[in-house]
Amino acid sequence: MTEAFGDRLASAVEARASQLVVGLDPDPARLWPRAYQLAAQAGDKAGGSAASRAASAVAAHCALVIEAVADHAVAVKPQVACFERLGSPGWASLAETVHRARERGLLVLADAKRGDIDVTAAAYAQAYLGTTPTPYGEVEGLGADAVTVNPLLGADSLEPLVRAAREHGAGIFALVRTSNRGAADLQDRRLESGLTVSELLAELVRRLGLEGVGRAGLSDVGAVVGATAPERLARLRGLMPHTIFLLPGVGAQGGRVEDLGAARGVHAASALISASRSIVAAGEEHGGDPAAAAAAQAARLRDLAWSLGG
Amino acid sequence: MTEAFGDRLASAVEARASQLVVGLDPDPARLWPRAYQLAAQAGDKAGGSAASRAASAVAAHCALVIEAVADHAVAVKPQVACFERLGSPGWASLAETVHRARERGLLVLADAKRGDIDVTAAAYAQAYLGTTPTPYGEVEGLGADAVTVNPLLGADSLEPLVRAAREHGAGIFALVRTSNRGAADLQDRRLESGLTVSELLAELVRRLGLEGVGRAGLSDVGAVVGATAPERLARLRGLMPHTIFLLPGVGAQGGRVEDLGAARGVHAASALISASRSIVAAGEEHGGDPAAAAAAQAARLRDLAWSLGG
Repeated sequence: MTEAFGDRLASAVEARASQLVVGLDPDPARLWPRAYQLAAQAGDKAGGSAASRAASAVAAHCALVIEAVADHAVAVKPQVACFERLGSPGWASLAETVHRARERGLLVLADAKRGDIDVTAAAYAQAYLGTTPTPYGEVEGLGADAVTVNPLLGADSLEPLVRAAREHGAGIFALVRTSNRGAADLQDRRLESGLTVSELLAELVRRLGLEGVGRAGLSDVGAVVGATAPERLARLRGLMPHTIFLLPGVGAQGGRVEDLGAARGVHAASALISASRSIVAAGEEHGGDPAAAAAAQAARLRDLAWSLGG
Repeated sequence: MTEAFGDRLASAVEARASQLVVGLDPDPARLWPRAYQLAAQAGDKAGGSAASRAASAVAAHCALVIEAVADHAVAVKPQVACFERLGSPGWASLAETVHRARERGLLVLADAKRGDIDVTAAAYAQAYLGTTPTPYGEVEGLGADAVTVNPLLGADSLEPLVRAAREHGAGIFALVRTSNRGAADLQDRRLESGLTVSELLAELVRRLGLEGVGRAGLSDVGAVVGATAPERLARLRGLMPHTIFLLPGVGAQGGRVEDLGAARGVHAASALISASRSIVAAGEEHGGDPAAAAAAQAARLRDLAWSLGG
């Protein structure tokens, strides 16, 4: 039988003593210098278009970042947009990055924020969590452990993704309260019922996840809750007791690990701290080798989070 | 100077006497038989993985559909999920499909429903509407004329897409009221302010589009409004007088062109009728050659829509 996502994550968090998720948002114009060198060596053989050369550098960069942070993190979170903008070669580099991370024992949370009507949601589930039947055989999807989704279209748009996730021991993370300023435009609005839009989404997440709670008490339907709005955490935790919170916005966006205590639920794995630029670009701020700086910053964030509720 | 999206669309609608958008949602297990034959001929040369063979068949299918409907439609709407599930080869077939449609004089509305924080929204804008700077030169994006976006994250998540669209004479279509049953879960909820969530999104769309209204009176920030909820059209049109409505859900999802009169705004191009399965799978229902059946159904929908407000 497939192990539930919450249990897989709980085991990984315990084994690594880490709740840290490292975001991979590669900008092909600002990769680690070593990535360009590695790509040039590969490029000398392959030649190729700007897109394929950039994608090759992006894949090399992500491999270096994964290597640097692997001992300190439990998962990586590749931002799909950053690969998608390089087209077909970009998708190949995303697949390669997923493969690398899993080889290093990291879980992969694909940050795709997909959301669409049921037929299309099923296609996205095939793309990220499952396989696609074709007359030429099954086509493997990305093989992510989880994917972020957008719940604006309601329950029936998420159900195909929940079903696919559950079948594969994977998870989904639905947006509940995002880390950006504009989140206030809609998510913080209060409904006639008295709930805010975020709170309504929290109810939806809780309900969709009820049948996906594993032995560790964690559901396979998680929530994205921005680390930039810590005052909302206790309320949202109350509405979603078994939900894994993915907390982006630490570092570059202004969120602080120290302020996230209220996100803690039934298990150390119930609150995942996600940081991207503050780790990967740590060398730009603090100087020194980018990989060493990233490793040091990842270790620091990991220890800080663990000390607050490991 | 770049021509505004609304004016480009208005010219195309007038020239073709059509408001019809044909959705391309290729399921690699249910393509037109001729597509498999064409792919087999290509495959005899190339061999390749299940993904690349399926992607080749998908591209052949989309080319056949484009050829069948080109005289009756003003645009095609490729559903990105259907290509994305075939990975890197799928993205190549999407790019090929966009190229084919534009060659045939059709506009391309990429149905991606993307939405993310500002930095990431800018990356999606590069992917769909612009280019990405890299040390190896600019990487061309998909080159779509417009992309569908999800507004759950608020104004600051859409602004980079609006800016990129405006710069390139392209457009965006933000979800306001989707065509699925689950749309009621959040979009139809009433806020304390008295507006429904959809109406609040309509206000946001109107505001973001104010500076993008062209000579024809149409803005470059459009709205996705499901054809399955015609009773809401008049109210939403009132809130968004200069907005181009993209009306999916005609046919397979139950929407009827006859019920969409209230969507009509200042120009024939203000209401685009979108149908996918009811056109592409017309041959399955009515029998006969799939291409001939699709062409006949497209012509029928085009004439019907035009007779109501061309």
